Amino acid sequence: MRPFVFVNVAMSADGKISTRERRQVRISGKDDFLRVDRIKAESDAVMVGIGTVLADDPSLTVKSPALQKRRTENGRSEHPIRVVVDSRCRIPPDAAILHKGEGERIIAVSGHAPHERVTEIRKLATVVVTGDGRVDLGDLLGQLYERGVRRLMVEGGGSLIWSLLSQRYVDEIQTFIGGVIIGGADAPTPADGEGFIRETDFIKLGLLECTPMEDGVLIRWSIIHPEANQE
Amino acid sequence: MRPFVFVNVAMSADGKISTRERRQVRISGKDDFLRVDRIKAESDAVMVGIGTVLADDPSLTVKSPALQKRRTENGRSEHPIRVVVDSRCRIPPDAAILHKGEGERIIAVSGHAPHERVTEIRKLATVVVTGDGRVDLGDLLGQLYERGVRRLMVEGGGSLIWSLLSQRYVDEIQTFIGGVIIGGADAPTPADGEGFIRETDFIKLGLLECTPMEDGVLIRWSIIHPEANQE
Repeated sequence: MRPFVFVNVAMSADGKISTRERRQVRISGKDDFLRVDRIKAESDAVMVGIGTVLADDPSLTVKSPALQKRRTENGRSEHPIRVVVDSRCRIPPDAAILHKGEGERIIAVSGHAPHERVTEIRKLATVVVTGDGRVDLGDLLGQLYERGVRRLMVEGGGSLIWSLLSQRYVDEIQTFIGGVIIGGADAPTPADGEGFIRETDFIKLGLLECTPMEDGVLIRWSIIHPEANQE
Repeated sequence: MRPFVFVNVAMSADGKISTRERRQVRISGKDDFLRVDRIKAESDAVMVGIGTVLADDPSLTVKSPALQKRRTENGRSEHPIRVVVDSRCRIPPDAAILHKGEGERIIAVSGHAPHERVTEIRKLATVVVTGDGRVDLGDLLGQLYERGVRRLMVEGGGSLIWSLLSQRYVDEIQTFIGGVIIGGADAPTPADGEGFIRETDFIKLGLLECTPMEDGVLIRWSIIHPEANQE
């Protein structure tokens, strides 16, 4: 068993999530900020890859005090569990995600992560060791489910999203497409990694919603799982 | 003076126009095929980069006999002028675009294109020489305008689109977003090239239309030109 997994991503009209220097950029506006805060507050856990932590140093906290209050009134922590997929345990001990706001943090590392670093991070967060060389995402999702996570929001970046998508662990994608062109053959996209070669391997999506929002468009897609992989 | 320039592109939900091997893939369906044929028939010229010619060998002809007929009834050729931006004159003499269907072809090369190749291609098409090393797109657009081209459709690929966008020669973008994930850090996107680094340089777009179509979404964007660059 695994949680319901949805990806939330903001991209430019030409499919970039930041510049080729991986600098965090403003693609969406205030309405999308509020939407993202709301869907984050409705999630049990929020997951990012280590690349995003190193590039943007996000805290992934719920920003609205009203939404925080609603969570605590329902007997939950102010913020969802924050999960970092970090195969080599590269997360800096002073990363915002480890310090800002209350609530559990889970750093998922592989069996090949340097022991010293793991020991250091264990003082600041729950460390889950799974997989050789790379974090075993299926096992990690299973462990999150066992810890009570039923709804998991994935906030990027492109490598983690690709890994989750290509291993068929994603159920829904919410994409805000902002009215800007960033360009760049080397700029990160919502799904990087290897990519598919054969058309028959492409992941098929169903359109759930398509709504103009501020100077862009919000699109929600469901992932169409092949019969064999249905849970 | 230059023509009204619009880009037509089909991309996956994760912003890819083909696989990392640049193999042509089916992103859109029949409705989009008919839409693209219609907007092509309504254009005076259709432009592609040499990369697209080498990868896909498109003919860029109007497919519908009814649309062809309407063009000839209006005193035009069956197909729009087909323009290839090909700085080094690499187009193969047997390329489909040089042979399929009636109508003019213009191959735009730079002053550095090998003389021998240019002589060979001149037997098959109009060759326009402009720019050193790379085709001077501004001059090419001016020459197309002088030849009566008022509406120019750009059919890709990502490098040509980036060059046109970054030099502010584009007025509108029509994007069909198909319900598939292709993935790949190296897969081509609608705007490749160098890309912008500074947020203030990003090209700003205005949303003109956002319509569900088959298993995807058609989005039309207008380019918001900075005051100084208005023509």
